[in-house]
Formats: sequence, C-alpha cells, structure tokens
Amino acid sequence: MKNVEGVFAPIATPFGANGEIDFGKYAENLAKFDKTGLAGIVVLGSNGEFTMLSREEKLDLIAAVRKGVGADKAVIAGTGCESLKETIEVTKVAADRGADVALVINPCYYKRDLTELTLEKFFAAVADASPIPVMIYNMPGNSGINLPSILVTRLSAHKNIVGVKDSGGNIVQISEIIAGVPSDFSVFAGSGSYLFATTTLGGKGGTLAVANVAPDICAEIYALCLKKEYEKARKLQLDILQLNACVTSRYGIGGMKAAMDLAGFFGGLPRPPLQPATEAMVADIRTQIEKLGLLGKYK
Amino acid sequence: MKNVEGVFAPIATPFGANGEIDFGKYAENLAKFDKTGLAGIVVLGSNGEFTMLSREEKLDLIAAVRKGVGADKAVIAGTGCESLKETIEVTKVAADRGADVALVINPCYYKRDLTELTLEKFFAAVADASPIPVMIYNMPGNSGINLPSILVTRLSAHKNIVGVKDSGGNIVQISEIIAGVPSDFSVFAGSGSYLFATTTLGGKGGTLAVANVAPDICAEIYALCLKKEYEKARKLQLDILQLNACVTSRYGIGGMKAAMDLAGFFGGLPRPPLQPATEAMVADIRTQIEKLGLLGKYK
Amino acid sequence: MKNVEGVFAPIATPFGANGEIDFGKYAENLAKFDKTGLAGIVVLGSNGEFTMLSREEKLDLIAAVRKGVGADKAVIAGTGCESLKETIEVTKVAADRGADVALVINPCYYKRDLTELTLEKFFAAVADASPIPVMIYNMPGNSGINLPSILVTRLSAHKNIVGVKDSGGNIVQISEIIAGVPSDFSVFAGSGSYLFATTTLGGKGGTLAVANVAPDICAEIYALCLKKEYEKARKLQLDILQLNACVTSRYGIGGMKAAMDLAGFFGGLPRPPLQPATEAMVADIRTQIEKLGLLGKYK
Amino acid sequence: MKNVEGVFAPIATPFGANGEIDFGKYAENLAKFDKTGLAGIVVLGSNGEFTMLSREEKLDLIAAVRKGVGADKAVIAGTGCESLKETIEVTKVAADRGADVALVINPCYYKRDLTELTLEKFFAAVADASPIPVMIYNMPGNSGINLPSILVTRLSAHKNIVGVKDSGGNIVQISEIIAGVPSDFSVFAGSGSYLFATTTLGGKGGTLAVANVAPDICAEIYALCLKKEYEKARKLQLDILQLNACVTSRYGIGGMKAAMDLAGFFGGLPRPPLQPATEAMVADIRTQIEKLGLLGKYK
Repeated sequence: MKNVEGVFAPIATPFGANGEIDFGKYAENLAKFDKTGLAGIVVLGSNGEFTMLSREEKLDLIAAVRKGVGADKAVIAGTGCESLKETIEVTKVAADRGADVALVINPCYYKRDLTELTLEKFFAAVADASPIPVMIYNMPGNSGINLPSILVTRLSAHKNIVGVKDSGGNIVQISEIIAGVPSDFSVFAGSGSYLFATTTLGGKGGTLAVANVAPDICAEIYALCLKKEYEKARKLQLDILQLNACVTSRYGIGGMKAAMDLAGFFGGLPRPPLQPATEAMVADIRTQIEKLGLLGKYK
Repeated sequence: MKNVEGVFAPIATPFGANGEIDFGKYAENLAKFDKTGLAGIVVLGSNGEFTMLSREEKLDLIAAVRKGVGADKAVIAGTGCESLKETIEVTKVAADRGADVALVINPCYYKRDLTELTLEKFFAAVADASPIPVMIYNMPGNSGINLPSILVTRLSAHKNIVGVKDSGGNIVQISEIIAGVPSDFSVFAGSGSYLFATTTLGGKGGTLAVANVAPDICAEIYALCLKKEYEKARKLQLDILQLNACVTSRYGIGGMKAAMDLAGFFGGLPRPPLQPATEAMVADIRTQIEKLGLLGKYK
Repeated sequence: MKNVEGVFAPIATPFGANGEIDFGKYAENLAKFDKTGLAGIVVLGSNGEFTMLSREEKLDLIAAVRKGVGADKAVIAGTGCESLKETIEVTKVAADRGADVALVINPCYYKRDLTELTLEKFFAAVADASPIPVMIYNMPGNSGINLPSILVTRLSAHKNIVGVKDSGGNIVQISEIIAGVPSDFSVFAGSGSYLFATTTLGGKGGTLAVANVAPDICAEIYALCLKKEYEKARKLQLDILQLNACVTSRYGIGGMKAAMDLAGFFGGLPRPPLQPATEAMVADIRTQIEKLGLLGKYK
Repeated sequence: MKNVEGVFAPIATPFGANGEIDFGKYAENLAKFDKTGLAGIVVLGSNGEFTMLSREEKLDLIAAVRKGVGADKAVIAGTGCESLKETIEVTKVAADRGADVALVINPCYYKRDLTELTLEKFFAAVADASPIPVMIYNMPGNSGINLPSILVTRLSAHKNIVGVKDSGGNIVQISEIIAGVPSDFSVFAGSGSYLFATTTLGGKGGTLAVANVAPDICAEIYALCLKKEYEKARKLQLDILQLNACVTSRYGIGGMKAAMDLAGFFGGLPRPPLQPATEAMVADIRTQIEKLGLLGKYK
C-alpha cells in the first residue's frame, strides 16, 4: 500500500424514490469524481450515512466504489462498529471487496466504559486482525468521544495503523499528533475548514464533506501547499469556509446532498429520519455554490 | 395490553467463553427474575448490550425472554436503530417474538441533523407502524441527545405511545413530563437512584440497572410508595445509592455484571471492547452488596 | 444560630432610573416579604445580581435586609468572591452588618486550577475564618463548576459549615449528599422546580427565585411536606413548574423582575448588560402569574 | 494608536510572602521583557490573575507596566467586569494610567441572560465610552461563553473596536473571523499552541501565556511567518507545544509561575485559592524548559 495522502471525498450514498440505494447514480457520481484531482474515495464515512445501512448494503457499496474509480484512486472504507467482533468481520470483508485502507471509528455508545485504555486495546486488536492498513477515525461531534493526541501517538507505533482522520477540528490536538507521530503517519483534516491549517502544520491531506461538492478546489488547496504557494492556498481556504459550513455544521447531510445536486452530482434524499434541506437552506447553499462558480459544474 | 407499570430489570446478555450468547445461563437468570416482585423484563436495553448484538441475536433474545418468564410479567423490547426503516422492521419482528411493548431509543449519530422536529417525526412514524405500544427511551448519557419535556408531552398524544423511560435523571424534566402527559401515560425512572423521587412525583415505576442485582429491594421501594409508606421507601432509596452508582456511572456494564455474579445471578463478561470489572472495582461492589445483604441471595 | 431551615427568597436588587440601588423600593419589598411564610431572606444571591455590585453596595444591602425584616426571619448573605482574601474580608463585614449565615459560592474563573481539593481547602479556610456559619453554594449553571456530593459530604464535617444550597438540580447528587451528611446539616433546593423532591428526600428547605414572586405557595409546599400531606404538596409543585421556568431558565433575571412587578412587588430593570424582559416574555409570564392567582397579590 | 500587532506577554502578577503585590519584582520582570522581541505587555489578563485583584491594585499595576517598559512597547490592559458600569469606569481610568488598548472580556456569570445580542450591545457601549481602542477578549475556557465569529465580525465595524484575542482555539472560528473583518482588524491567537496556524491564516500576532516564559521564541515564530520562512516557524511551533501545555491546560497559573521561575523571571506563588505547582509538576515543566534551552535564560 502506498502512503495515504491527498484529498478524499467521503462519498454520499444515493437513495432512490423507494428508499433503496441507487447504484446507477452512484456509478455516475464515481465516474465524475474519478476525473477530479482527488486522491481517492472514502466509502462508508459519516457523509455516506453508514449507520443507516445494513451490512450487505455496506459491502455492496465498497465493491461499487472499487469498480467505479481507476486504480490510481485509493479506496478507504469505513468499517468501525460498536463491537470488536463485528468490526473485525466487516474489515476483513471490506478488504476482500477491494478496500485499500480501513477507516475505523471508535465505538461510542457506552461512553462511560470506553476509557482511553479500552479504546487503545480496541484499535490495536482491529489492526492486529485487519488484512489492510487501518486509519483511526476521530469524530467527536457525532460520537461524543474525543480521541486525545496521546492515544493517537501511542497507536501510531502499531505497524498496521497508518494514519488518523481527525474531525474534531482542534488544531492544537492535530499539532500535538503531528509532533508525536512518525513522519510517514498520515494526519488528515476531517473537514474542509481546516485543510490549510492542517497541511501547513505537516498533515498529509484530508477527507472532507465539501470535497463531495467542490473536489477540485479542495485538491487545489492541498496541491498549492505542497508547492509552497501559501498565499493562494490561504485565499482558497478562506473562500470555501461558508460553503463548508453549509454542508457540515449548518445543514448536515441534507445540506450536503442539496449542494451536490446544485454542483451537478446526484445528491438526492437522505435516509429517514434524516431530512432533506428546506427551501431556505437550499437558497443559502445556492448562494455559496454560485459565489464559487460551482453551479452545475459537474453536470 | 395492560398499563405499563412497576419495576423492570433491563436484563443483561450473558456471553460464554467463546464470546457467543449463553442461552442456558440466560434461562436460569430469567427463572430467578420470574420469582421476584418485578413487573417484567426489558430485553435489549442499554444494560443488555444491544448495540453489540446482531439482528438475529436480538430476536432470539426476545423469544427467550418471552419463554423464560410467566405471562404475568410484561416483556419490553428495545427496538430503536439509527434508521427509521430498520427500527420499524425490528419492532414488527419483536412483536412477533412476543414483546408486549417496544422501547425505542432515538437515533443519535447525526446529532446536528436530529432536531426536535425530526425526532418527533421519527417517533410518530415508528408508533404508526408498530403493532405493539411504543415507549420512548431517553438516554442522553449514551446517546448524547436529550429529549426535552415538551417533545415527550407532544408525543404522549399519540394513541400508540404509552410511556417514556427517562434515563437522563433531570428531575425537573421528569416533573414537567408528569405535569404535561395524560394520567395513564407511564413515566419511568431510568435509574434506581431516582426511583423514589420519580414515583412520589407521579411516575409509574422504572427500568433500573440495579434491579438486575437487587430486584426485590427495587420492587419494594415502588410498592411502599404506592402504600404511602414514604419514610420506609425514602430510607431504602438512600440505602441503594452506592450500589446503584457501582452498576451504572461508576463501573458501567462490567461493574453491573460483576454485581450480578456476587448477588447469585450469572453476570459474566461483557462483549469487547467492553471490559470486565477490575479486582479493585469488584472489591468496592462487594462492599455495597454485603451492606445490603445481597451476597449470594439469588444463588 | 438556630438551624437553617425553611424557604428563603433570594431577594432581587431594585435599581432606579439612574441605575443606582433604590433602597426605598427595597424596604417596601422587604416589608411585604416579612409578612409571608418565608423563613428568611437571602441577600446577594445570584438573583440579587451580586456580581454587578460594588463592595460598598453589597454591605449596604445586607444592613438594609437586616433592618427590613423581623428578628424571626433569618438573613443569609452571599459573600463568595474569586479570591480567598476578599471572601474572608466580605464575610467578616457581612457578619457585622447583621447576616446570620454566609452563603459562599466557589470561585470559578480559573476552572482548570480549581480542583476538588483546592475547593475543599477554600471552603475550609473561609469557614475557619468566618464569625458566622457558612453554607456552601453550588451553582454550576452560572459558575461552570459542579461541587460533587463527595466534596460536600466531606465539608459537612467542619463545625462551621452548616448546609449547602444546591442549584445544580441533580437529584441523585442531592440524594447522595442527604445520605452522607449529619442529620442537622441543611440541604437546600436551589430552585423551586425541585423543592418537593428535595424535601421528601430529607432536605430542609430551599432558596428559590420563584419565592420572590410566589413566596406563600413555596412556603406552603414545604409546610405540607412537613405535615406529610404529600399529595397536596405534589400538586402545588407541579402547578408552579411553568412559572418557575419563566423566572429562571427561560427568561433569567429580567423575567424574574417582570414577574415580581406583576405579582405586586417592585422588580424594575436589571443592571446592564442584563436586559429587561421583552413584551413577548412578559405576556408568557403574565399567563403563568394569572393561572396561579398571583396578579397584583402583593400590591 | 498604531496597529495592534505582534506577540504580547500577558504578564503575571507577583505576590510577596505577605500575599500582597510585590511591585519591585514586577519592575524587574518588566525590565527583562522590555529587552525581548515582544511587541508589548498585556496587564490584567487571565494570566495576571485579574479576578483576584481589587480595583486599586488593578490600576496600580497598569501604571507600573506603563512606567516599566519603553514607549515602543504597547500596553494592553484588561478592563472587563461583570457590569457595564464598572467596565466603563475601569476602562476610563486605565486609559488615564497609560493603557494604549483596553482588552475587554465579556461578562459571563449570567450565562442564560447573556445572549449574542446582549453581548453585542455590551461591547458597543464599552467601545462608545472608551477613550482608547477596544480589543474583544474571547476566553470560553474560563468564562463558559464563546463569542461566535458572526458576533466578532459584526463588532469589527465599530470604529473603536480594533481587534479580538481569541483564546478558544477553534481554528475554524478564527478563520471565519479573519475572512469577515477589515484587513486592519487584529485577530490574535490567545495561546501559543496555535500562533503559527493563526498567523499563516492572516492573524496579526497573539497574547500568549507561554510568552511569559519563552518570549523570544514566540516573537521569532511570528517574525518568521512575516518573512515567509514557514518551515522554520512550523518547527518552532511544534517544539513549544509541550511547554505551552504545561503553562496552560496542564498546570494552570501555578504551572506558569513555576515555569517563569525556572526561566529566570520571578513567578512566585499565585493568590489563593489558586495553588502553586507541586513538585511533580515542576519536574515535568523543568524537562520542557531544559529541552528548549530556557533554564535560567532570563536570570
């Protein structure tokens, strides 16, 4: 496995009018992403509504992504479940279906029981059993648990743990991780709003909701940082803040899917209880989409 | 369906040395609970490690509970999932397997998206589709979302929603719910530490982790309140606070299972990543068990 | 000093059009409270806007309260400051001005530094130096720090610490305190919304924002509990929940002062930056005031 | 007033054995800071224990700072209080005593009442009345209130509000502020752990606890960014993370004062209830001080 590096889209899962996955639309979106500057696709991330899917649906989506993009694009699959047993089972099958890397979120329901030490054992056990490299997924906004920098730096010593996607957005924590891990360990921004800050500090890229809508701008921010064109990268970073907010904290999954529709991808409806964006939300999103010249760009 | 009332044990799921459910031990525990003063059993509650179980395991456990206790004991089954689709499917099969009531926790992963209105739609849709009465399950400590009193009182108007189990422990919220719902709507304490307070305010019982260890004491607190013997009930309530803490906030699922072992039930190991209680924890738990005269009582 | 027991009003500080304290209106309010069933007055509580006052103003208010109510009413004065030095100085002068008990909130600005042990030392040092008994004031909603039950029970062994006012409203914590302190230690509800629950568990009364508006109803709830007329007390408790919310969590200090005006006391304006209630807030408050028959009652 | 720009030390307040301010030691520290690359001094910041000081002490400290450093160093004085009245009074006298800029923290005790709109009115009223420019101070870790980016950007239109010190550390919020304010508005990092990230995004400097211990390293990080020597700046930023943690989140005021003593400044004891660093803490701090070659450097 090559190093995990660059900007990834945590691809959305399209549902048809009957509430079932629309694999045709999925293939169309993948074909479009395949032509962008993205390094690859994250399937079954939070933006993929992974908690709404059955195990069978999950595995079919992994296979579809592997088939839908070229060999130069890496495929990272979300495989974390509440139990260790199920996490290992899903990770093994994900590898069979073509995933290059397993993105493993921590279990989170039993918050009191899931101490730092218990979570360390969990990640080590998954990495021991996994046929593919493991990336840690820290998502405190959804999981209610933060993985502190000291835990991630300790786990970075495991030979099958290759990176972390930090969606907490605490730049001090991200800095401490970068200062404490081996230089080939991939520290990823988990949101487009701190891609520039993470990269200038030494991060290796990100997996970003906004990359589902503006993949080339996101890839460009990262590429500019690599070329040390910081002023241009900084400006692009500031430019996408409002769109990024629309597809994450402000309007959630429904907002992201509406933004995808406006940009020319297929977004469609989220699975209930998640709700589509309201008209007022769509109007706000459209304003941001237009400001960035993205309206219908990926049609 | 009779009114949902009285004290319920949210029964633990016993695992054998191979990590699989031990249905023999489960039947033994059920036979013991059947002889207590409990009103019934909650299967697939948080204390039953429901997030660690496959759908097949869940349904087998419901059937085992229905078979394992007498017809005078009510069976409440936890059926909430992240998606509405899966919640309805599981609720329907739970009814087929013998559940009298469905205890439905709110979806919780997409915290930003799950507004009060979205959650109201979710519960109404589940109740519309469910062949058995629905009880709302508010568990903010694990889910990270609190269901406010105004939401519960609005939902109490639905003819197929018959109660709420409030595990948040906010006594003002519980009071507001009691003040706002019909008199036959069951407001349940979600922990043994506020059973007395909830009942004196007008609650109808509770489903309590500590009832897995001290079922008769818990049933006695409720019975004393009904008989207006408040001073005796108050004393018992204060007496069980420390044991209650050991099996909930202090030591979690591992602590509760260790306490069950000490009291003469089968507790055993939790499913990883959950960890068993350490020796120091067991020593503390034993002290509380002995103070209450519960050591080996249910052998 | 007699035991601290019964229901207290945390009296508001009236400001004139020039922004200065209106001692005339203060005396009028005190004369009215003196005729109610209240056990006494808390001066310089959170509802008295103590953080908005100079030290000189604080001491003048204490003297005014002592002069304004009869000898049968106890006077509890808020004396907690951020530094130990200032807290002791203010407590000593408060005693000179006639305070019977010092209500001491924990320092709260340096949240990281103020560990449980540091706070224990702080309260012990204040109690050592105070010429009058000390009551601990736990107000996590404003201070951002909760004083856990174990800290309060340890401090209850100090001979000059006689009680706690718990405004956190965690009924489990209040229960644990009651179970762990000597029987003559006064555990007070810090809000009218859990006066009944606290009293039935063994508390000795409360100091309640809503007692500034409905003093006799609050005193009645406590008196009924003492007479074991629990059903009547329970009903009154549920009846005042909405008014209580209006003068605390829902509309804050401005709401409480508007409610005082409606009930026939002088409320007036809070000191800026605090804002008066808006018209819409006043309309909601008036509805609750009328439901309880309190409109103009104390004119 | 020149633009507020560069790195500032939020100078500590030294106390003698009698608990009173030691102005002699203060002058010695100031003389040392005067020779560093710092842009100036913040007096009465959180690290100056401003909540522990009387008004008279506060004003004496401002005068001492103005006298203790050269005219090329700017003096920023913390003047925020809970009431608007006292904040304006203190701000005016601070200007008389020589402060160039007033750093105004939001009131924070009445969290429920202090809505975004109320806080906006507060800052505008202070800025209207202040004879010197105002800088907004956002310190959610201590105050329990966060000032959102939209509030700061709106206030940036006021001609007497010249900047914000953001100690929340949310880099997305800092980015949004930078994207939304005029180019001469100063956005300051409030901690040394995100000075590099803030500056590369377009911030103008910072006021940093760690600048009390390592002033020249902090000034160097900022200077390197201005010179576009990002790789060197990045390395220094990562190097100071552990020392920064020691003097902020890990060991608080006591830790910062111990670190000052080790680096050759006078730190001494904090005012109770704040506690000095324990021996174990000092050992950890010493390790970090030595790693950076700071032991006795400012003797």
